[in-house]
Amino acid sequence: MTAYDDLLAFTRDTIALGEIAGRLGWDQETVMPRGAADQRGEEMAAIESVLHARRTDPRVGEWLEVAEAPDEVGAAQLREIRRVYDRTMKIPAALATKLAQVTSVAQGKWAAARAAEDIAAFLPVLQEVVALKREEGAALAAGGSLYDAMLEDYEPGTSAAEIAATFDAMRPRLVALRSAILEKPAPAALSGYYPAETQMRMTRELAEVFGYDMTRGRIDKAVHPFSSGSGNDVRITTRTDEDDPFNCVYSTIHETGHACYEQNVDLAYLLTPLGRGVSMGVHESQSRIFENQLGRSRAFTGWLFDRMGEAYGDIGVPDADAFYAAANRVHPGFIRTEADEVQYNLHIMLRFDLERALMANDLQVGDLEAAWNDRFLADFGTAVDKPSNGVLQDVHWSVGLFGYFPTYALGNVYAGCLHAALRQALPDLDAQLAVGDTSGATGWLKDNLQRHGARYAPREVITRATGAAPTEAPLMEYLESKFGALYGL
Amino acid sequence: MTAYDDLLAFTRDTIALGEIAGRLGWDQETVMPRGAADQRGEEMAAIESVLHARRTDPRVGEWLEVAEAPDEVGAAQLREIRRVYDRTMKIPAALATKLAQVTSVAQGKWAAARAAEDIAAFLPVLQEVVALKREEGAALAAGGSLYDAMLEDYEPGTSAAEIAATFDAMRPRLVALRSAILEKPAPAALSGYYPAETQMRMTRELAEVFGYDMTRGRIDKAVHPFSSGSGNDVRITTRTDEDDPFNCVYSTIHETGHACYEQNVDLAYLLTPLGRGVSMGVHESQSRIFENQLGRSRAFTGWLFDRMGEAYGDIGVPDADAFYAAANRVHPGFIRTEADEVQYNLHIMLRFDLERALMANDLQVGDLEAAWNDRFLADFGTAVDKPSNGVLQDVHWSVGLFGYFPTYALGNVYAGCLHAALRQALPDLDAQLAVGDTSGATGWLKDNLQRHGARYAPREVITRATGAAPTEAPLMEYLESKFGALYGL
Repeated sequence: MTAYDDLLAFTRDTIALGEIAGRLGWDQETVMPRGAADQRGEEMAAIESVLHARRTDPRVGEWLEVAEAPDEVGAAQLREIRRVYDRTMKIPAALATKLAQVTSVAQGKWAAARAAEDIAAFLPVLQEVVALKREEGAALAAGGSLYDAMLEDYEPGTSAAEIAATFDAMRPRLVALRSAILEKPAPAALSGYYPAETQMRMTRELAEVFGYDMTRGRIDKAVHPFSSGSGNDVRITTRTDEDDPFNCVYSTIHETGHACYEQNVDLAYLLTPLGRGVSMGVHESQSRIFENQLGRSRAFTGWLFDRMGEAYGDIGVPDADAFYAAANRVHPGFIRTEADEVQYNLHIMLRFDLERALMANDLQVGDLEAAWNDRFLADFGTAVDKPSNGVLQDVHWSVGLFGYFPTYALGNVYAGCLHAALRQALPDLDAQLAVGDTSGATGWLKDNLQRHGARYAPREVITRATGAAPTEAPLMEYLESKFGALYGL
Repeated sequence: MTAYDDLLAFTRDTIALGEIAGRLGWDQETVMPRGAADQRGEEMAAIESVLHARRTDPRVGEWLEVAEAPDEVGAAQLREIRRVYDRTMKIPAALATKLAQVTSVAQGKWAAARAAEDIAAFLPVLQEVVALKREEGAALAAGGSLYDAMLEDYEPGTSAAEIAATFDAMRPRLVALRSAILEKPAPAALSGYYPAETQMRMTRELAEVFGYDMTRGRIDKAVHPFSSGSGNDVRITTRTDEDDPFNCVYSTIHETGHACYEQNVDLAYLLTPLGRGVSMGVHESQSRIFENQLGRSRAFTGWLFDRMGEAYGDIGVPDADAFYAAANRVHPGFIRTEADEVQYNLHIMLRFDLERALMANDLQVGDLEAAWNDRFLADFGTAVDKPSNGVLQDVHWSVGLFGYFPTYALGNVYAGCLHAALRQALPDLDAQLAVGDTSGATGWLKDNLQRHGARYAPREVITRATGAAPTEAPLMEYLESKFGALYGL
C-alpha cells in the first residue's frame, strides 16, 4: 500500500460515512416519526463528530505530503482531497464550534422573526453570524479576498470579480426584458383540480422520461423538494399542490436534473472525491437545463400538454400554445423561489451584491433591510410590503451560507452555454422533445459533462462540454428570444 | 468531568452511531432502491468499522478501571459497559475478522443449499463456522463452559444447565399435549380474500390498540417482519398475505410487543447502555405475551372477530368461538416460524440440544442432519421429507448464531410467568380485552418491566415484576389449560 492508496482508502470510508449522514437527512425529511427529532439531533451530532475528526485527521496531511498520484485521475483525486483538507484545517476548531452553535440559534430566530414579521428580533443574531463568517473568511483568505475564499466552498476557482462582471452584463438586459414583458397582458394560467395521487404517478413517469434510473433511486414527498445521495442511491423528493400541477411537475424535473448528474457520474469514481457533482453552479446548471431549456421548451410542453390532458381532463387552456405560455408565465412577485426564468437571476444579483457588501464591511446589518428594499424597488419596480417578502424570505444567511447565492445564477449561465452547444450538436432536438423523448439531450449531457463528476474544475468542465469558456451571452440570447416571441416584444 | 462522565459521554456517542447503523438496516429492508445494495454494503462496512474501533478503544478500559458510579443507576451503566467491553476484548481481532468473512460466505451458501435441497453443499462451510465459533467460545469462556459463554451475548447471567433443566421439564408435557391435540379434529381455518391495503390499515389500528406510539414510530412492509430502533424512533415492519390475514395480524402484534418494550424504556436512559431491552429472552417475552397470551386470548379474539367482520365481511367462520379456535389451530408442520404456541418450544429444544452438542464437540457436522431428523421424528412423529424442512430451514447457524435459539423459548417461559402475575394484578383483564382495551395489560408490563430497560439483569427483572424467580410452570399450566379446553382433552 502506497501513501496514495492509504489516503484514498481512508477518504473512501469518510465519504461512505458522509453518504450515511446524507441518508439520515433524507430519512428526517421524508419518513422519520415526528417524535424522533431530538434523538435524531443527537445521532446526527455523533456522526458529524466522527466526520469532523476524520476530515481533520493529521494522517491526511501526512499522506498528502508524500502521496504520488498514479495517473491523471489520481492527480484529480489528490487535488480534491487537498482542497477540502487545507480549507478545513484553516478554520480554528473554536471558531467552527462557535459558528455551528450560533447558526443553529440563528436559524430558529430567523424562522420566528419571519413568522412574526419582526426583523428586529433577527438582526442581533445575524450580526453575530456576519461577524463570525468574516472571521472565518479572514482565516480562509489569508490576506486575499474574504468573499472569494467563501466562494471556494461552493464554486471552486471562481472569483467574485468574474461573477460581478457576468451579472453586471445581465442585469440591465433582464430589467429591460422584465419591464417589457409586464407591460403586456398576462397569459392564462391553468385551472382545475389535480389529485395528489395522479401527480405522484406523473412525477415518476416524468423522472423516468428525463432519464432517472428508478432502480437506483426513489421519489417521495417532502415539504421542500431536494435530491440527495450519489452513485447508486440518489433519491428525489417532490411536493404536490392540488390547484397547481406545475409546482410538482417542474420541481420534479429540476430535482431529476440534480439526481441524474449524481447517478451518471462514472461509477469508477464511486465513493471517491471525484464521484460527485463538481460544484453548486454546475449542479444547478443540470437542474435548470432539465427544468427550463428542456422542460419548458415549446417542443416538450407540446407533449406534456397531451399527457396532462389524458391524466386530468380539461386543464383550463385550449391548446398547446396556450399551455406553453402558461408554463412560462412571468408575473410580479417578491419571492425568489417562486420566480420565473426572467426574474430569478435579478433576485440572485440583489443578494450577491448585498452579501458581498456585508462581508466587505461596506454594509452594516442594521442597514440591510433598507438596502434590500431600495434595490428591490429599483430592479422590480415594486416596494417590499413586509419582511417575509423581503430580507427575511431566505434561510441562507441565518445558517451562514455566504457565497452560495450566486451559484444559482451561475447555474443558469452555464445552462445557457450548454443549451446552445446541445442545439448545435442535436439539430433535431425539438422533434425528439415533441414526442417526450429527452434521451438525445440527457445522453449528450451525460456524455459531455455528468460522467466526469468532479474530475475537472467547474469552468473547465463547461468549457470542455461546450468548446468555449462560459459567458452570459447564450443565456441572455435564449431568454430574449424565447420571451420576446412569447410576449410579442 | 469525571472518568465516569467521560466514559458515559463516549458510550452515548457509540450508541448513537449504533442506532444509525440500525436505521440503515431498516432502510435496506424497506425503502432502499435495489440497485444500491453493493454501495450500501460498503457504507455499512465503514460505519461498522467506526463502531468496532470505538468498542475496542483502549480509553474505555482505562475509564472502566477508575470510574466511580455516582449512584445505583450509574453502577448498572458501568456493569453493562464492562460486560460488553470485556467480551469484545477477549476475542482476538484476527478471529473476529475471520468469523465475519466466513459467516458472510456461509450465509450465501446456506441460502443456495436450501434452495437446491443440497445439504452437502453447506456442510463444509458450516464445519468452518462451528470450528471458529468453538475457538471464539474458548476465548470467551477462559476455561469455563463454551456454550455458557455464548449465552452471555443473548441472555446474560443464564446458564445452559438452567435452561436445560427448564426445557427437560417442559418437553414430555409438550409432546404429550401435542399428540393429544392432533388426535382431535382440526378446527376450521378462515377463508376469504383479504386485500393488502385493508390489512395495512388494520395493522396500524392494532399496533395502536396495543399501545404503540405512532408519533415515535412507523409501520412499513418488509419480507421478514422486524422491529428496530430504540427510544423515540422505533419502527415496525410487517407483511401481508391476501389469503391469510392472521399472518399480518399476529406478526404485527408480535413486533408491537418488541417495539413497545423499546418505546417504554425510561427516557432518562435514552442512548445509554440501559436504554434497551435487557436480553433476547426478555424481549421475546414481550412480543410473545402481546401476541399469544393477550392477542390470542378468547377475550381479545372476540373483539378482533367483530373488527375483522366489519373490515372484510364474511371471513368463513360463524362466530367468535370458531374464530378463537381458528386463531389457535395446532397443525402438523416442519417449520419453526410457522409453529403454534404448543409446538414452537419443541422446535427450539431440538436446536438447543443439537447446537450444545456441536459446541461440546459431542456431535459432528457430518452427523447433524441425521441427529436432526431422528429428534424431529421422536418429538413430532413425522419424518423430515427434505433439508429445507429440516436442518436447512433456519439462517442462524450459518451466520454464527449459537446460543440464540434458546432465548425464543425462554421468552415464552418468561411470558408465562408475567401472564400469571398480570392475571393476579388485573382480575378484570378479560373484560378489558373483550372490548379491545389492552391498556391495563400493556400499562402493567410497562410499569413493572419495560420501563426498566437494561437496569436489572434478565432473571432479576422478571422476578421483580412477578414476585418469584421464573419457572416453566405458569407457561405449561397456561398451555395445558387453554388447549385442553379448546380441544376438549
